[in-house]
Order: sequence, then structure tokens, then C-alpha cells
Amino acid sequence: MPAMLINGQPSQQIPADDRGFQYGDGLFETALVVNGQVRFLEDHCQRLFTGCARLGITPPDEATLRREIAQVAVQTDRPQADPVQTGRVGVQNRGVLKIIVTRGAGGRGYRPTAGMPSNRVVALHPFNPVPQGALRLRWCDIRLGRNARLAGIKHLNRLEQVLAQSEWREGDADEGLMLDTEGEVVCATSANVFAVRDNTLLTPDLRFCGVQGVMRAQVIKTAAKLKLAVSEEPLWPHDLETASEVFITNAVRGIRSVASLDSLQWSETGVATRLSSALSLSN
Amino acid sequence: MPAMLINGQPSQQIPADDRGFQYGDGLFETALVVNGQVRFLEDHCQRLFTGCARLGITPPDEATLRREIAQVAVQTDRPQADPVQTGRVGVQNRGVLKIIVTRGAGGRGYRPTAGMPSNRVVALHPFNPVPQGALRLRWCDIRLGRNARLAGIKHLNRLEQVLAQSEWREGDADEGLMLDTEGEVVCATSANVFAVRDNTLLTPDLRFCGVQGVMRAQVIKTAAKLKLAVSEEPLWPHDLETASEVFITNAVRGIRSVASLDSLQWSETGVATRLSSALSLSN
Repeated sequence: MPAMLINGQPSQQIPADDRGFQYGDGLFETALVVNGQVRFLEDHCQRLFTGCARLGITPPDEATLRREIAQVAVQTDRPQADPVQTGRVGVQNRGVLKIIVTRGAGGRGYRPTAGMPSNRVVALHPFNPVPQGALRLRWCDIRLGRNARLAGIKHLNRLEQVLAQSEWREGDADEGLMLDTEGEVVCATSANVFAVRDNTLLTPDLRFCGVQGVMRAQVIKTAAKLKLAVSEEPLWPHDLETASEVFITNAVRGIRSVASLDSLQWSETGVATRLSSALSLSN
Repeated sequence: MPAMLINGQPSQQIPADDRGFQYGDGLFETALVVNGQVRFLEDHCQRLFTGCARLGITPPDEATLRREIAQVAVQTDRPQADPVQTGRVGVQNRGVLKIIVTRGAGGRGYRPTAGMPSNRVVALHPFNPVPQGALRLRWCDIRLGRNARLAGIKHLNRLEQVLAQSEWREGDADEGLMLDTEGEVVCATSANVFAVRDNTLLTPDLRFCGVQGVMRAQVIKTAAKLKLAVSEEPLWPHDLETASEVFITNAVRGIRSVASLDSLQWSETGVATRLSSALSLSN
């Protein structure tokens, strides 16, 4: 089990009446840690607190949460166990920080008790290096339900994503793209998606479903520096078919070029590469 | 905390890497226990196992689960603490059984490990007596997202219901009716809904969302005995406006007549009463 603090205490257990367990009544964040530093920490905290406000969850005390994050993240700040033997001298020490905030424990049925204190889990997981190179994507069969009230935030109701990733065996594809029930392109199972057309980045507006990704926001912010326009709009499969380049983004895995989507293929990776450089991502 | 068995052991804690907590990746059942007996136990078990099959969750061993259920449920089979003082001689000892089955602990991200052993929680909660008489309902603002892949089963992704019940203060209404994103009537926040028109029971077909309730199935099965037809179909607000009688059903609270839905009112309760009698419910 990973290094973990639950409400500030080292623990690996949560009470069974926690509403995150009972109803998925909570939020999470997944961030990359490099040499003890959480990448885009401000953005992750902001999305988490926005999610609390949207769901009416009592936010954790921010100073306390940040102290706990630092306490857990620092555990990546160690020299390689054996750099000579592994031949990876100078490789950065990476980890994945996962934060979960739930509405708290108890309450009678679905009805939450107003102002109940939230519960928080701060954990450090190993970073699993991902294969380099452009990715092979597939379309997922399962669709995303539309609910504007839950769109954008990173809440704990993730059965659609679990079922989506169950559709293929690891290695048969690198990621799956998801449509919503009306056929709009929304996202990959754990990444946002961008299509390049002329000098414009097209990306789904996420008004009905999907998560407002931290890396997605960084890409949108950085596009102007590279003289790229950005359009957040309803995206359809046709927009991918006619794109010169496609890439997906995720806070932990960075910006990744897409080589194929079932029978569609792309060879362009220039925009993704320029954005990665501008953001100093080493993925 | 209630009497609780986790994977057969007395405990109140679950591991924080349980996928029920991480993603709402699991199922639950809520059943009424009367004098140590679980009402409609077969139906609850059947829905639970159907849910496991639908989500690809390893089902618990049925004999083991039933033994644990019996072990927990028997705790309602006690005499009243002080029947003379409470004046409730002969009142049945009731409790609420809650079963949670999750896909299990661990796995890498959303992707579940094939065949991982599920985790199960079997708990007995107190039965909170509900006010008698016909209920006052309201329309909920939040809509239910449509996803046929999750429709009918009682999965753990319940943020929509949590937000729905947050819309009114306890006591201001007895229940809330929910529409889906296309405007069809689906259910109450924790009950199914029936409208009576002539000698027919109309109830939503739940093809896109909602839970196939245990009490709903009992009502449908019993209707024929009372010479009532049943139509499971898309239901719209108009169908309620033109109904002679409306009632809602829930495994714990039984069949409950509806007196009002915001400004709509009904005085007929005959069909609900006859169904309750036919099913020997004492609600």
C-alpha cells in the first residue's frame, strides 16, 4: 500500500460509513510529483475546491491540506536506489499524488447532513512509466451520460470510466475515446482530447460531461504563446476525421500525440511537441 | 455505528484502495428486516447478482453471503426493550439491512484487474419509522443522466440522488420526483413511482436510468391478482397530471400513497391500499 494520510494521520483504512464509499459522494485529484514537487499544484487545489463548492461539500482547511500534500510528496525526493546498476543516473524521481475528499461519514440515506466535516485522503503512488511514442486509441462502446450538474468536476462517480477501460485488454490499445449518449466526443477514459485544424485547437466544451483537466487548462493557456487559436465547442467524430493532428492530455502523463484511432491515422505531432516544449514537460 | 460484517469479520473499516471508495465501483441493496427475517430476500439477492454480472464484478459466494445476512439480521429478533413503557406491545422489531459489494481493492487506475475478489459489507441499521399518511412530493431540479449500461441496477454512483435530496430541508417535503435529462419521469430519489389510469398501473420503463426496485417488481407481480393491468413505458409529467392516483414504492418503506406533487393533488389511495393488503405490508 502507498504512503497515505487520512485526515492527517497515517492510515490505510476509512470508516465504512464514509459517504465516498456509500455513494461516491466526493472528489479526487491525481497529480504528478517530481522530486518532491507537485506539478500544477495550484490548479489541482483550485479544481478540488471548485468541486467542493459545486457539490456542497465542506472544503478541507487549505493550509492543512497543503501541509499534508507536502508531507506525502516529499517521499519522492530521494536519490535513486541504485543509479549505477539501473543505468538511470539523473532520472527524476517521480510519483503520483492522489487526493480524495469526501462529504464525510454518516448521514441518513442519500440526504447529507448540512455542514458535515469532510474526510480527506492524501496518498503517494508509484509512477508507472508509460510507453513513449504516439498512442493507439480506440472508440469505447460505452457512452457517457449527460448531466450538466456533474460536468467538469472530478467527482467519485466513475463507473462509466471503469467499464470503458474494461473494454480492451491492456496492451491492445493505449487509450479509449468516449462519446456521450448524443454522439459528441467528450474525452479519453482518463485524458482530455484536442484536434488540430489549420492553426486552431478544437477541444470538447465539456458542458454536459467530462472533466476540466489540469493539463487541458495548461494547453489552452499556452496556445496563445504559440499563435494557436483555441475553440472549446461541441466536438464530433467528423472533427477528428478531418484533423491534421490529434493529441490527448493528462496531468500525470502530459501531452501525448495520437497515431491512430481504430482505422484513422495521423503522422503529424508538431503541435503536441511544441506545446510540450513550451510547458517544459519531459514526457 | 451499526452491526457490521466486512468479508465476514466484524469491522467498521474498509481499505482505502477499495474500488467502491475510489470510483463508486460496486453495488448495494437495502432491505427491511422484521423480527430477524429479511423481507423479499430472494429478490434482493437476485438483483445484487444481476448487478455483479452486468458490471463484471466477481459475485460473492452466495451461501457465505446468506449466512452473513442471517447472522446480522437476527439482531432484530429481540423483544422490545420496554414494551410497557413505550406502549408498543406487539410492535414488530424492525431494522434495515444494507449490503454493499464492491469490485475489490486495488487495480491500476480505472482499469479493473480481471477476476479480482469482490469485497462485501453486510450491516444492520436502525429502522426509522416514517410518518404515516399520504406523502407530499416535489419535483427535483437536478436531472438524471441517461446511460442504458447502468440503468436498472443499484450501483454505487449516487451523486445525482445525493444532490437531489439536498434540494429541500427534511420536513419541507417527504420525497422528490426526478426527471431524466430529456424530461421523462424516472423515479423518486429513493423510490419507484406508479400512476393509476383507469384500471392500469403506469410506471417508467427505466430503460435509460433508475433502479429496478424490489417493491416495484412485487407490485407488478401482484397487480394481476387485483385485475389491474401494468404498463412499463416512458412516463411524462403529463401522465401524472392525468392520473387518478399516484403512489411510490420502496423495499423498506413499502407502498406509499402520494397526496401532492407541488401544486398537483390526489385524494384517491384505493389502489395503493389494495396492493399493500395483497402484499401483507403493514406500512
